Amino acid sequence: MATALDRHLALIGFMGAGKTMLGAELAARLGRGFVDVDDEIERGTGLPIAEIFAQRGEADFRRLEEAASLDALRRAGPAVVALGGGAIESAAIRAALAERALTVHVAVDAGVAWSRARDSGRPLAHEEESFRALHADREPAYRETADAVAHDVDDAVLAAAGAHVGLGSLELVDELVPAGPVALVADAHVAGIHGADAQLALGGRVVSTHEVAGKSSADLEGLWRSLRLDRAGIVVALGGGTTTDLAGFAAATYMRGVDWVAVPTTLVGQVDAAIGGKTAIDLPEAKNLVGAFHWPVRTVIDPALLATLPEEERRNGLAEVVKTGLLAGEPLWELPEPELVRRCAAYKSALCLRDPHDRGPRHALNLGHTFAHALEAASGYELSHGRAVALGLLAALRLSGRDTKPVEDVLAPDPVRVDRARASTALLRDKKGPFRIVLLGEEGAYEAELPAAEVRAALDGLIAD
Amino acid sequence: MATALDRHLALIGFMGAGKTMLGAELAARLGRGFVDVDDEIERGTGLPIAEIFAQRGEADFRRLEEAASLDALRRAGPAVVALGGGAIESAAIRAALAERALTVHVAVDAGVAWSRARDSGRPLAHEEESFRALHADREPAYRETADAVAHDVDDAVLAAAGAHVGLGSLELVDELVPAGPVALVADAHVAGIHGADAQLALGGRVVSTHEVAGKSSADLEGLWRSLRLDRAGIVVALGGGTTTDLAGFAAATYMRGVDWVAVPTTLVGQVDAAIGGKTAIDLPEAKNLVGAFHWPVRTVIDPALLATLPEEERRNGLAEVVKTGLLAGEPLWELPEPELVRRCAAYKSALCLRDPHDRGPRHALNLGHTFAHALEAASGYELSHGRAVALGLLAALRLSGRDTKPVEDVLAPDPVRVDRARASTALLRDKKGPFRIVLLGEEGAYEAELPAAEVRAALDGLIAD
Repeated sequence: MATALDRHLALIGFMGAGKTMLGAELAARLGRGFVDVDDEIERGTGLPIAEIFAQRGEADFRRLEEAASLDALRRAGPAVVALGGGAIESAAIRAALAERALTVHVAVDAGVAWSRARDSGRPLAHEEESFRALHADREPAYRETADAVAHDVDDAVLAAAGAHVGLGSLELVDELVPAGPVALVADAHVAGIHGADAQLALGGRVVSTHEVAGKSSADLEGLWRSLRLDRAGIVVALGGGTTTDLAGFAAATYMRGVDWVAVPTTLVGQVDAAIGGKTAIDLPEAKNLVGAFHWPVRTVIDPALLATLPEEERRNGLAEVVKTGLLAGEPLWELPEPELVRRCAAYKSALCLRDPHDRGPRHALNLGHTFAHALEAASGYELSHGRAVALGLLAALRLSGRDTKPVEDVLAPDPVRVDRARASTALLRDKKGPFRIVLLGEEGAYEAELPAAEVRAALDGLIAD
Repeated sequence: MATALDRHLALIGFMGAGKTMLGAELAARLGRGFVDVDDEIERGTGLPIAEIFAQRGEADFRRLEEAASLDALRRAGPAVVALGGGAIESAAIRAALAERALTVHVAVDAGVAWSRARDSGRPLAHEEESFRALHADREPAYRETADAVAHDVDDAVLAAAGAHVGLGSLELVDELVPAGPVALVADAHVAGIHGADAQLALGGRVVSTHEVAGKSSADLEGLWRSLRLDRAGIVVALGGGTTTDLAGFAAATYMRGVDWVAVPTTLVGQVDAAIGGKTAIDLPEAKNLVGAFHWPVRTVIDPALLATLPEEERRNGLAEVVKTGLLAGEPLWELPEPELVRRCAAYKSALCLRDPHDRGPRHALNLGHTFAHALEAASGYELSHGRAVALGLLAALRLSGRDTKPVEDVLAPDPVRVDRARASTALLRDKKGPFRIVLLGEEGAYEAELPAAEVRAALDGLIAD
């Protein structure tokens, strides 16, 4: 497994790395319990760690630490578990990590660690030279034990989700895709730009290739029939949301499920569509009517691929970036592109890890989208998704009594010329009573029941005469 | 949830019901750990239960029992947990059962319980009248707390799998299908025989109906497009393996997964195809190439439906019954039909609960089927599945060095006239080296690597010139 979806997320690293603070924040983001093993030991013995060292010696402390670490890792319900700096020296703990956790190394520079630990009274932080020697000794062991390395909470979230974000990561795709034969599935247009690079990077592992034109049931059948994998095979999807939706669903169902890796090539894909394990196809009756929750074992996000993105596609993505920033309460759209992608991908990853089957917290992601879908349907899907979302965000912010300036400044959406009655029907069907919708409060998104008339008026305000 | 797939299986019931013996056997069948809470209390205190009662009183025992029961139910990894007779009087234990377990009431007659408990030294079994009064008092509470009732280990396995086996259970289908709107999906032929009964039983809940002709991707698309459910809806599949395979897969993927209930109407369906959560459709490239693991929330098995079964269909089912009996080491084929169905359904349910994603133990079910699939393919699927399986079992028993008499006596399969080269290619492709196949030993099925030549010779022995 390459994600922490059903497993503990364990943090290892040197003293002073900030495992406790990062762990607490991470647990809050993922909606999980947090276990700090040092705290557990202090609570269990009624003594500070320094006292245990002083009174009973390091060997005795290590025995306590091993028992407390194993106990934490064996508990039910995936939690965030911060281990002590020396925990990885125990073979039993390393085995429990391998079996029951995704392990993230919280990296820290020796100098930074010393400046934090020197006055903390920690037993092994009395003297700088031996402190630095221990750091140099342990860093390779952390690296070897960990599944990923993190410098901040967003890195840790991305690691938990199996996501790798970095300029040039497409070139590392062979290393990032787990061992096994690969079926390379690429958007027909993207295949012409990056297909050869991907195939070159994956080398002799590619056993079949397929180009994606859409995500209808006919497209699905064509893809299914092109696959030449056994159960150990991996589908690698290279493209935008259409490609990752289709290929992810094909992977979810081919031989009752094979692993897949998403390599999103659009801004929408990198900050939204390829993240969270939702896959689907469209039927004439409705978009995304059929699909599966099938989390990719890896999501390889290379912001360098955005260089070749058409302007229209970039604007579609920017609307999702603004939505994410509004939800996160930070102007993420102002960040440079690689960092913007990393932060947005981490925001959505956390919400989806928290609610993988879309039963509650994840509904926040519908902010503005209820209106957007209605406008898109009323336009016969002529309206771009980006403009529809921008307009939808405007309506959601107005209904929330919030400032619409960020949306106007960044996305500048003009009202759209569609049939009002058709849009209203697409939104509300024949609903007269209260209508459930995602609004934005000071503390983030929430769901509210609004009178249908009020929702219809907000929709009307998005439509030009 | 209506199954113990990811949850503890908790046994409740009166003293003398046999929870400990049944629990240990159940745990072995399901490949799970077994926790007997009375044992845990005795181990924890170092005292026999009778001593705890005598020294510390019943109130103190109840506190220990509550703590030990909650501890067992909170542990990770779904286990079989046998609770004490009085455990359900604790509201905290009842809440933990509702949250973390599927609860089965092991029912026992007061007289039988007394005959077992009277000389056991149990604290509450000193005197028959009060013993019987306590039994009468608690039985309704067990019934109310439990999700199902069991009289033996097969009953308990079926309850864990969400299966209900009984003559006339089709009439109870409205009670057995969880609340929600229903899409009724029926085999085109079966719809004419039992469709009206099912629709009548389900009453006003049926929002759409669909008839199944096959399980191609076109059949799947037709079914998807016929569904008129929201996420709270339930697909009810009425028919043989084709219908449950197709409808289960449609349910697995419609809106990324809705619940479904299997109502198998053939012997193959009742003892095999509808059990275990495997769903699939056929593609031109291979049978069952695409599908999902999607365990039905209920499997309603009414052996009375077999009365209208054509002889050919009955023979198909009998081949699976013989396979199950061989695996179980008991001549299950000799039992009267309703009991034969119950025992076979329980056997397959246990194996599938043990290995829901077909990673190991469940491979035993392939006994004889490797040969059967090759013969079917070589015949262009003219050969009946029953005859193909019967021949396949013959080959598997011969390779295992076992008596083939049961297969010959019950199924009497004649060699089949198919192209030898075609059958050999379908079985072995171009394999020359060792070939992995399921054999039958004294202790049950196991996988072995046999030389391809030996496997080919066994196949040849099934083919007439």
